[in-house]
Amino acid sequence: MSKPTRTLDVCFSPGLIHLYDIKDSVVVVIDILRATSSMCVALHHGVRSIVPVASVEESMAYRERGYLIGAERNGEMLDGYDLGNSPFSYMTDGVKGRDIALSTTNGTQAIVAANHAYTIVAGSFLNLDVLCNWLRLQDKNVLLLCSGWKNSFNLEDTLFAGAVVEKLEKDFSMSMMRDAAIAARHLYTVAKEDMYGFLGESSHRMRLERLQIEKDIEYCLTPNQAPVIPILQDGALRPLNHKEHKAH
Amino acid sequence: MSKPTRTLDVCFSPGLIHLYDIKDSVVVVIDILRATSSMCVALHHGVRSIVPVASVEESMAYRERGYLIGAERNGEMLDGYDLGNSPFSYMTDGVKGRDIALSTTNGTQAIVAANHAYTIVAGSFLNLDVLCNWLRLQDKNVLLLCSGWKNSFNLEDTLFAGAVVEKLEKDFSMSMMRDAAIAARHLYTVAKEDMYGFLGESSHRMRLERLQIEKDIEYCLTPNQAPVIPILQDGALRPLNHKEHKAH
Repeated sequence: MSKPTRTLDVCFSPGLIHLYDIKDSVVVVIDILRATSSMCVALHHGVRSIVPVASVEESMAYRERGYLIGAERNGEMLDGYDLGNSPFSYMTDGVKGRDIALSTTNGTQAIVAANHAYTIVAGSFLNLDVLCNWLRLQDKNVLLLCSGWKNSFNLEDTLFAGAVVEKLEKDFSMSMMRDAAIAARHLYTVAKEDMYGFLGESSHRMRLERLQIEKDIEYCLTPNQAPVIPILQDGALRPLNHKEHKAH
Repeated sequence: MSKPTRTLDVCFSPGLIHLYDIKDSVVVVIDILRATSSMCVALHHGVRSIVPVASVEESMAYRERGYLIGAERNGEMLDGYDLGNSPFSYMTDGVKGRDIALSTTNGTQAIVAANHAYTIVAGSFLNLDVLCNWLRLQDKNVLLLCSGWKNSFNLEDTLFAGAVVEKLEKDFSMSMMRDAAIAARHLYTVAKEDMYGFLGESSHRMRLERLQIEKDIEYCLTPNQAPVIPILQDGALRPLNHKEHKAH
């Protein structure tokens, strides 16, 4: 089912996405702390759809159409919004069956940057296994797109990319794997026994520590808590359903 | 002499240089295979100056002014040029005392991208210790700029950045170190006992293997073979002299 010559690569910043030919690729958007983690949680807990929006103004237009609106800038929830960026805020009964318009510093911006991909899905440790099993079955090149922090490289997104590379490397020709994928895999190997400790020295975690979201971070680094694949269809992320899962 | 709050960071691609405020920074341009390695060799072996040029046309104008011209595209020497990109071609008596205009796929382009920095120097394993000793004494932020491969991340430049981070981290506040620097240092730690073997799986080395430059690669990974600091002054790289070395 998979072609041996398909590529598995990692892009460390949305600012470098133009270097990759993604029109025939599955792009996995990664924003571990915390946009894509929260997206997985939300869809796993019954949210119907999530529209990634790039601006605050756009959010407000969605609110008028009955959407809940979520937003985060620089790690903090914005005044006037229904939801922030903590995965725990997407586990309540209040979000079940609802549509959400979500704007974040990095994650939703990465989705916008990759909008010409064949398919866009959201990846996080929370959906690691189900995502890798699905990627394994696709007959497409895969690009793991790290959202980073304001277009700069970050460690937590890279570690997740490395986890995916480790799981999928047997399904791809190593000669088709480029340096960013190799680097991410090595970093994950160094970090995987204690990712929380490893990230203790990273700048983004230090930024987030100031926001007292230690509990969020621990949760976002725990594999397979939200086994769902958010897939972008008609501008919104929806859970890939079982039927599509097989047929895709 | 050094300020504890100065930053040490790594930029993985000239395509991300706009994210960094470098007007008050020393930027170390890195293109291990092989531009900045060859620059170190050339200046150590008596070349008077190296003008980095971005285009073939520009090279020809320099030839008319008496310069030797060197060029490489996609790892290969170009027809009609005096010199390629192999460090060994810059060790001959023929280059002593000469001025060279050099155009390469990645390295000279990175120098152009960083042209608004406070100071630009060239780094390679060949000048590792002398460079780090000098950086330690500067009262400036340091940005290690990996040339990459056509703006994509590459491993060999990252390993060198990691080697510099390892040598300098005690001289900088760790809280001022960002994720790219941490990642580079970890990758260097994994690779340093056998960099040649580690790079055996990297895409750029595979590209270069096809060009039969194994000897170049081994040389370019050997520390301190050309203890000179190429520094950009008035548009040309010249060896930082001993007097400047102390006074800077």
